Amino acid sequence: MLMKTIRIKALNQENFAPFGEVIEATEQCESYFINEGNCRRYHNLAKVEAKGENAKAIISIFRAKPISLPFELKMMERHPFGSQSFMPLSPSQFLVIVAKNENGKPASLQAFLANIGQGVNIDINVWHAPLCALKMETDFFVVDRDGAENNLETYDFENPYRIEK
Amino acid sequence: MLMKTIRIKALNQENFAPFGEVIEATEQCESYFINEGNCRRYHNLAKVEAKGENAKAIISIFRAKPISLPFELKMMERHPFGSQSFMPLSPSQFLVIVAKNENGKPASLQAFLANIGQGVNIDINVWHAPLCALKMETDFFVVDRDGAENNLETYDFENPYRIEK
Repeated sequence: MLMKTIRIKALNQENFAPFGEVIEATEQCESYFINEGNCRRYHNLAKVEAKGENAKAIISIFRAKPISLPFELKMMERHPFGSQSFMPLSPSQFLVIVAKNENGKPASLQAFLANIGQGVNIDINVWHAPLCALKMETDFFVVDRDGAENNLETYDFENPYRIEK
Repeated sequence: MLMKTIRIKALNQENFAPFGEVIEATEQCESYFINEGNCRRYHNLAKVEAKGENAKAIISIFRAKPISLPFELKMMERHPFGSQSFMPLSPSQFLVIVAKNENGKPASLQAFLANIGQGVNIDINVWHAPLCALKMETDFFVVDRDGAENNLETYDFENPYRIEK
């Protein structure tokens, strides 16, 4: 069986830009102090998209079991009506696998290791793997879209990808 | 100086309902399994409101210094164009102080201790105190609203409130 291998890279704003936004508080972010200097606001790290009939941005928690590496990726998904953000609620790393779209299929896959303190906002209609926690069961704060239309499209690979360090 | 005292109560869905939503993954939430059973989605724990011209829900991180108790509360604020959610990014408690509105002023204040695993979504235009971390500097994941109109109204108390355990 032909299996392509994808090597995991460290996540940063620059390499993730084609797919969405990295959510993290850094010195490079726009930030300012509020509440009489008691709080620093790292402002507008990501924009939430919610399109379609009766569309609404909603907050959920995803409790994800960990995957182990190397990992066989058999499918990807995308959400045509909304962005989807993931942020761990404990200091945890996780894996973000995304792809370009070519003729309605995921192509040129990339796998990123989100470090402690990093989350991601995946742009509307960007192919991505299901949430991949690492090492331990992890709760994620998720902002995505609720609305009338079906917001989930999936694609099953003929040959799975092997994701490794 | 006349100072009213507000005693801190444990936060739960029921007592916070007049002010917004508690964001937490519990057995009472609507939840279902996704990703072939590897992930449990605690669904739609809170709705994001973003109103006004060019309104958009945005994601920010607030890095808040801790307050110490007892605490003197001198002002409150509200956001007429959007909800605002706060979720700690580490296992941390924090304080949520909210109030009813009476004649455009905060009244009948209540102080809630958000336990580890709990966040809040404060409804549009609900009076609340600035973010109160406890014990240590804490990063919070914040979903609120960006847009054309001024979304901040503040109210300074003639006599501060004393918030205590």
